[in-house]
Amino acid sequence: MRREAVIELLRQLEAHTTTPEAVAARLASLPFEDLGFAKLDHHRSLRSGMPEVIFAAGKTPEQVATIFSRLAATGVSVLATRVDADHAASVRAAVPPVEYHELARCLSLSQSPPAPQGHVVVLCAGTSDLPIAEEAAITAELFGARVTRIADVGVAGLHRLLARLDDLRRADAIVCCAGMEGALPSVVGGLVAVPVIAVPTSVGYGAAFEGVAALLGMLNACSPNISVVNIDNGFGAGYIATLIARGPQRS
Amino acid sequence: MRREAVIELLRQLEAHTTTPEAVAARLASLPFEDLGFAKLDHHRSLRSGMPEVIFAAGKTPEQVATIFSRLAATGVSVLATRVDADHAASVRAAVPPVEYHELARCLSLSQSPPAPQGHVVVLCAGTSDLPIAEEAAITAELFGARVTRIADVGVAGLHRLLARLDDLRRADAIVCCAGMEGALPSVVGGLVAVPVIAVPTSVGYGAAFEGVAALLGMLNACSPNISVVNIDNGFGAGYIATLIARGPQRS
Amino acid sequence: MRREAVIELLRQLEAHTTTPEAVAARLASLPFEDLGFAKLDHHRSLRSGMPEVIFAAGKTPEQVATIFSRLAATGVSVLATRVDADHAASVRAAVPPVEYHELARCLSLSQSPPAPQGHVVVLCAGTSDLPIAEEAAITAELFGARVTRIADVGVAGLHRLLARLDDLRRADAIVCCAGMEGALPSVVGGLVAVPVIAVPTSVGYGAAFEGVAALLGMLNACSPNISVVNIDNGFGAGYIATLIARGPQRS
Amino acid sequence: MRREAVIELLRQLEAHTTTPEAVAARLASLPFEDLGFAKLDHHRSLRSGMPEVIFAAGKTPEQVATIFSRLAATGVSVLATRVDADHAASVRAAVPPVEYHELARCLSLSQSPPAPQGHVVVLCAGTSDLPIAEEAAITAELFGARVTRIADVGVAGLHRLLARLDDLRRADAIVCCAGMEGALPSVVGGLVAVPVIAVPTSVGYGAAFEGVAALLGMLNACSPNISVVNIDNGFGAGYIATLIARGPQRS
Amino acid sequence: MRREAVIELLRQLEAHTTTPEAVAARLASLPFEDLGFAKLDHHRSLRSGMPEVIFAAGKTPEQVATIFSRLAATGVSVLATRVDADHAASVRAAVPPVEYHELARCLSLSQSPPAPQGHVVVLCAGTSDLPIAEEAAITAELFGARVTRIADVGVAGLHRLLARLDDLRRADAIVCCAGMEGALPSVVGGLVAVPVIAVPTSVGYGAAFEGVAALLGMLNACSPNISVVNIDNGFGAGYIATLIARGPQRS
Amino acid sequence: MRREAVIELLRQLEAHTTTPEAVAARLASLPFEDLGFAKLDHHRSLRSGMPEVIFAAGKTPEQVATIFSRLAATGVSVLATRVDADHAASVRAAVPPVEYHELARCLSLSQSPPAPQGHVVVLCAGTSDLPIAEEAAITAELFGARVTRIADVGVAGLHRLLARLDDLRRADAIVCCAGMEGALPSVVGGLVAVPVIAVPTSVGYGAAFEGVAALLGMLNACSPNISVVNIDNGFGAGYIATLIARGPQRS
Amino acid sequence: MRREAVIELLRQLEAHTTTPEAVAARLASLPFEDLGFAKLDHHRSLRSGMPEVIFAAGKTPEQVATIFSRLAATGVSVLATRVDADHAASVRAAVPPVEYHELARCLSLSQSPPAPQGHVVVLCAGTSDLPIAEEAAITAELFGARVTRIADVGVAGLHRLLARLDDLRRADAIVCCAGMEGALPSVVGGLVAVPVIAVPTSVGYGAAFEGVAALLGMLNACSPNISVVNIDNGFGAGYIATLIARGPQRS
Amino acid sequence: MRREAVIELLRQLEAHTTTPEAVAARLASLPFEDLGFAKLDHHRSLRSGMPEVIFAAGKTPEQVATIFSRLAATGVSVLATRVDADHAASVRAAVPPVEYHELARCLSLSQSPPAPQGHVVVLCAGTSDLPIAEEAAITAELFGARVTRIADVGVAGLHRLLARLDDLRRADAIVCCAGMEGALPSVVGGLVAVPVIAVPTSVGYGAAFEGVAALLGMLNACSPNISVVNIDNGFGAGYIATLIARGPQRS
Repeated sequence: MRREAVIELLRQLEAHTTTPEAVAARLASLPFEDLGFAKLDHHRSLRSGMPEVIFAAGKTPEQVATIFSRLAATGVSVLATRVDADHAASVRAAVPPVEYHELARCLSLSQSPPAPQGHVVVLCAGTSDLPIAEEAAITAELFGARVTRIADVGVAGLHRLLARLDDLRRADAIVCCAGMEGALPSVVGGLVAVPVIAVPTSVGYGAAFEGVAALLGMLNACSPNISVVNIDNGFGAGYIATLIARGPQRS
Repeated sequence: MRREAVIELLRQLEAHTTTPEAVAARLASLPFEDLGFAKLDHHRSLRSGMPEVIFAAGKTPEQVATIFSRLAATGVSVLATRVDADHAASVRAAVPPVEYHELARCLSLSQSPPAPQGHVVVLCAGTSDLPIAEEAAITAELFGARVTRIADVGVAGLHRLLARLDDLRRADAIVCCAGMEGALPSVVGGLVAVPVIAVPTSVGYGAAFEGVAALLGMLNACSPNISVVNIDNGFGAGYIATLIARGPQRS
Repeated sequence: MRREAVIELLRQLEAHTTTPEAVAARLASLPFEDLGFAKLDHHRSLRSGMPEVIFAAGKTPEQVATIFSRLAATGVSVLATRVDADHAASVRAAVPPVEYHELARCLSLSQSPPAPQGHVVVLCAGTSDLPIAEEAAITAELFGARVTRIADVGVAGLHRLLARLDDLRRADAIVCCAGMEGALPSVVGGLVAVPVIAVPTSVGYGAAFEGVAALLGMLNACSPNISVVNIDNGFGAGYIATLIARGPQRS
Repeated sequence: MRREAVIELLRQLEAHTTTPEAVAARLASLPFEDLGFAKLDHHRSLRSGMPEVIFAAGKTPEQVATIFSRLAATGVSVLATRVDADHAASVRAAVPPVEYHELARCLSLSQSPPAPQGHVVVLCAGTSDLPIAEEAAITAELFGARVTRIADVGVAGLHRLLARLDDLRRADAIVCCAGMEGALPSVVGGLVAVPVIAVPTSVGYGAAFEGVAALLGMLNACSPNISVVNIDNGFGAGYIATLIARGPQRS
Repeated sequence: MRREAVIELLRQLEAHTTTPEAVAARLASLPFEDLGFAKLDHHRSLRSGMPEVIFAAGKTPEQVATIFSRLAATGVSVLATRVDADHAASVRAAVPPVEYHELARCLSLSQSPPAPQGHVVVLCAGTSDLPIAEEAAITAELFGARVTRIADVGVAGLHRLLARLDDLRRADAIVCCAGMEGALPSVVGGLVAVPVIAVPTSVGYGAAFEGVAALLGMLNACSPNISVVNIDNGFGAGYIATLIARGPQRS
Repeated sequence: MRREAVIELLRQLEAHTTTPEAVAARLASLPFEDLGFAKLDHHRSLRSGMPEVIFAAGKTPEQVATIFSRLAATGVSVLATRVDADHAASVRAAVPPVEYHELARCLSLSQSPPAPQGHVVVLCAGTSDLPIAEEAAITAELFGARVTRIADVGVAGLHRLLARLDDLRRADAIVCCAGMEGALPSVVGGLVAVPVIAVPTSVGYGAAFEGVAALLGMLNACSPNISVVNIDNGFGAGYIATLIARGPQRS
Repeated sequence: MRREAVIELLRQLEAHTTTPEAVAARLASLPFEDLGFAKLDHHRSLRSGMPEVIFAAGKTPEQVATIFSRLAATGVSVLATRVDADHAASVRAAVPPVEYHELARCLSLSQSPPAPQGHVVVLCAGTSDLPIAEEAAITAELFGARVTRIADVGVAGLHRLLARLDDLRRADAIVCCAGMEGALPSVVGGLVAVPVIAVPTSVGYGAAFEGVAALLGMLNACSPNISVVNIDNGFGAGYIATLIARGPQRS
Repeated sequence: MRREAVIELLRQLEAHTTTPEAVAARLASLPFEDLGFAKLDHHRSLRSGMPEVIFAAGKTPEQVATIFSRLAATGVSVLATRVDADHAASVRAAVPPVEYHELARCLSLSQSPPAPQGHVVVLCAGTSDLPIAEEAAITAELFGARVTRIADVGVAGLHRLLARLDDLRRADAIVCCAGMEGALPSVVGGLVAVPVIAVPTSVGYGAAFEGVAALLGMLNACSPNISVVNIDNGFGAGYIATLIARGPQRS
């Protein structure tokens, strides 16, 4: 409907019943959401090829499959996070080429992806952090970054981390997942000059308080290049790191 | 330099003026950073011109003045955060050209700054958030970003925020400061496509719990482009936003 | 009625068919509520037609069915909240015309309802908040309000909310359900002039802390027309909004 | 500027370069903030006479005096909350007729107030809750409600509360302030049929945790007609109660 | 007995069949409790007839049955708390006359009970608090108090509580169980002059935080005759109330 | 007295000097407490001689002096808690014979005290707990108990506690004050058979969290004869212990 | 070994079969740990015979079995903690001589153990703490300490603890496990002169908060010889106690 | 001494100057510590020369001076912690040779110290942690350890820490102080094989929560050789490290 209104306006211009200046002004004065958010939409269409994302937790397998296939039909890449085996089976039945990442609890479908732009390194402190780290890595890959995965480099065995120093220093942005005391981002942040997105994981027991200890540790990290996302939010970290690694989209 | 020192040592061996055992012992006794972390130092020297930063809280005016003037003497820009009036007086006496930002509780000295690179928008929800927002803005400017300040755009008066939509959309990175319920980043994150660094402030009373309510709100923000720093950490947010706005430093 | 009983007693005294001592004893032995709280009962009878409510959680299907049918037999409308499928089956067997709202986990039976009075708008931020929003909406309808439901208008997609501005502004009271950061009431409160009842939901993960982040956000909302109920308390919010929308019952 | 655009549009209509229908449609499509928020503004102007409010905490006496006198000059009533003696002196010097409520830490200036509409009862549990209760009462009076104050009716001396039952039952809305265990709203909520706005106060010691115990108690109150505002937020409670007591403003 | 053993030892010394050094060594090697804590044991035997108590949670049915029957064989009364159906079946098989209180999750065996001494009233706010109230009541009965149970007298329906005022005032000690906001003890404490043992229950949802809200409310109760036990600790409350109701055992 | 007033009213009816309607209206208009709560007042007068208590914190010296002297004039004993030096000076000027307990921050005036009844032992773990322990001891003495004070018997020096075992075992009730880890009640509770009132104190630093660690420790104490009052609530503990030590007041 | 490799490289240089530049490059390209952290590895090989440890929680039975057998094949002792029955079955199939400690949820394989060195006493307050105490005891034994176990010596029955005083005083280090109020370490710490490692357990209910009450109690213990590990971390406590009991390994 | 008293008593019996009954009564009436806890005292005298410690916080300068000089007079070393300038002046006046450590807020007096035994390394992450680290170092020195101090080796500048690796590896026990995220012990624990005592400091702001973030981080440290003391408890850490570094005192 709105689109028709714009076209009609342009037809008036075509019919010389208005001037370009008037139309330009008119377009600027369209309802906020129609123009204000059309920019957003326009912007969105400019970014065409950006994946759509489904948060599957709390949705039925049928719902996830329906949404996934509807989105896939538009030709964009699609990512579903927090999926279980039932979600996976249901989506696979609906969209056979989908890829199921069991460890990361993700489903991804890549359609006409652009060339990777920027390099994201995804680190995790222990093997128990791997599901969250993989969620971040898969997100970053699908959104268009080149990804290097480094696992099991907790600070209690510093040599394992330092052995990967060259990889760290080649990153444009780093995602750093850790549970328990969440000390890894503090150490990594001091070794590199790029932004580090810290992801506290709910790994640990007792006074780990389901990720709260790691969260607090990361918020208080003494390196100034560290910012933090919600506990277990691998997707958010991967997404932000990709934006950073791609760099400003200056027109 | 370090590499030359090692080669010189090896040349002595080649010239038989020392023994393999002595060289091995010498290598083992070199300070750790001389081998492994020379890269870091080298890297630092590459970034030459980056400001040095002093966290003044808990330091005496004399200590801050001493550190500030020593750093200033090296020719780099210098930033001191969390300064009070006594710190300011003391540093000004030692380094006259320093600039005192009373609201932001900062002292800055800009020396041979590079041309600004990237555009950071610093938002705050209410006038009480201004000190933290200013800390972020001053940091971003000193570290080399172009900065736009937008104040008093809390979500309860949405039209004030929406009126600045164009500014928001021209940003390469956004710093968003808010106390109380900390809802501003959620709204801003949905309006832009760039990373938003959310800074919870300790503004509010009662169940604001000195910034905890805002912190939790920001960690749970539903836009995926939001990451969070510590309560009242304007410096960190300004620093990260500058790194993001400058973009990857690909060699 | 109670007043009549007292007067009848006093008439017997006047008629000398009893003694002052006996009347004093009789008055003292009346159930407490008969003197002081008869007003409450009277008041209750004035409100005749107000639904009775059963909180089903922790009660057996048989208990809920028994209470429900006993209340239904008195001719009033009845609402049961927090019911599961077993509760529903059991009540349906006992009171066939009952309506089961699976999403809202409610059972309702409307008997000779009065004409709706006042307009309540029930909003929710995300689809996961729908069960709580529906509980509020069903409550408001059964207690006598006209209800408009608006779903999935989270603040990260502001245009969806703004598109419903006219609906918001026609409300006499608003119920606003949100989990995660709970920012929706802050935004809505700034757009309308009527009371907003904010319901934090336990939707979210990690630092959402089962609704605590949303609760704190809402308590600190900067609009002054917002008050808050317990986490997931859709019923309470719907009830209060209905009282407000109906307006003062001035005699 | 915007106003000129509208006038220009109307001039086109006058010049027959457009039709009334087109202009109506065009007006509807004006940028959101220009028309959408004009409604708000319009609405605001309809309510003309509504007081403006200043939160003084964290502002200097000079700032408060400047804002207060600027607002007062527009002819509206003005309320300043959380003022100290310095704020009061400064404002009094600038706006002599202002009234200083020392206990409530408020300054009020009533200008051409409308006739009171609706009856708000403000209760407090103990004498230490009086400052918050007074803030609520003064707010309600200034915003146009008739107010009855009832002090020192804590639940440990139930007879004092029950002695005021008639007053409670004449209220259109009740503000109920209590610290410590915050039990008063639960009891009051069971005695009346109107909405109760519960205000936890920071009164108490030890496990009162500066109002947290009262806040939790009120959020869990078993009467369904209770909603809660932030700790010590007398202003918010008085404002909401006034909105409720005035009743829906149906056009 | 123990005293006799010591005297016997000393007699051997007196009879020169041993030496002072040997006796000193023997005394030093006696089990600690035999010297210092024999009084405690003696005290215990004085109280003979007091029930023994088993906390069944975390023990297997077999373990509980074994302990229960061993204790029962000594002739004392026995109480097992926090039992489930399996515990009950297992103990019943071993000790047929045991009584199973399903609601209270207790097993009790009364053997040669003394005449009741003192009157304990056990109150609960809602029907969901009944299991804890029953645990308190059964404990008090088994330990020798006369018990009156009063259920469902939450403060939101004050008349129900006030109707039982005479019962309350006949108590020597009161146990008061409540979840949610835990306001009942505050009200009850103001109505009586005897000690009130408050038991927060884990009843409620959301911000009830599994009994924390009730616990805080009770700790802050404004009546000075209230003390508190752990969340859901009906046993402890019943035990303490019985001690109080029996009164000091002055010799 | 009240009963007489009612009978007098009824006699007037019997004498036809009034009408049933007038009597009913009169009865309805009597203050609530006159009918329902006269018992309470009566009860209070029975306890004549019980001290009145003033919580001075947050009251001005003048207010405390006024209340204190008004109460003293009625002939009862009076206790003021949480007084500072200014309160003390002001009350002393108004009521010269008052006693000022500086350590306990109390003022007491004993008027025609009854003979002590029952024995309360007040223990404290460390010397820093003395102010709270003294508040409990002074309260217990003024309310009519014989009091034994035992200081500095923390569990880390067990022999000091065990050396006072005989004193502990002569108590009818025990008040046990401890900060830091709050372990003393657990140990004491196991050594005696009477009720122990545990008072967590705000003594300690760091993870003592102003008494929270001690509070939690006491609520979880494994002896079943322990109940707890608010942090630093020496008065409440002393009052309850006195009620217990006096024993049931059976008529 | 590594040192030899370096010397070999240098010998080649001395023998002119390589150049200084090549050697410098070779040294720079050695894995980081080979230069800086070879000491760590060397150190590790010195400690040869120390058991390897697997944290089984969150790993599949197959994973645990694979890791266990691979480690066992190297000839060292192996410990797996937090194993369930499935883990046990799987490891037993792969490594038949493994020992399964069901209560402690551990699997241990002792291979050529050194003679015990040092004496560790492992205490627990109640029988519910036994699994954690056993985990500590088994760890200490496998790592080379002589272990004495003392169970069920909670502070509410002090005589049981004091009866074991001699055992306590023979310890070189003590592990002390307690849930609920966690008071045992405070008492034990006062009775001995050696370091006490306190382990809070998640035993308890209600305000025990899954071990938090015990944790806070232990952190605030007034004896200065107490340090604390994470809730339920029996392994860590056993390991540290063993290090302490063995004493400094001075070369 | 005590043993002699008992033997003397028994000799009297042997000499028939008393009776077995009288001796039994005498033994039973001996103060508890005289039998059971004489060992403790004996033990204490064995450790003669161990310093006595005064916790000055909350004590007046006069009290601290009195206790300090009384202890000093016995010839032992004395340590006072948490002293301010007034304490220091007062103690210096009474005990001139005392040493005042202003940064560490300690007073120490060393009298005939034994030769140092064992090597304690005290680390701190930042300069703000120095007061706590110094308290630990001074404690360790006074109690008889050789101490190495390493300051400002936070994990964000890893090379500074690694440069001190040799020092770390020469320690018999390590005290590791850190605020903010408290990550230093995790890293240090992985680099050494000796016990690490972690001290969370209250350094930091915002979500550091006065040391809670560091405390949680340390409790969750992934190296198994780390145990934790209370926030800012430098004294306790220094004391425990000294016990460990000295090693078992095997007789």
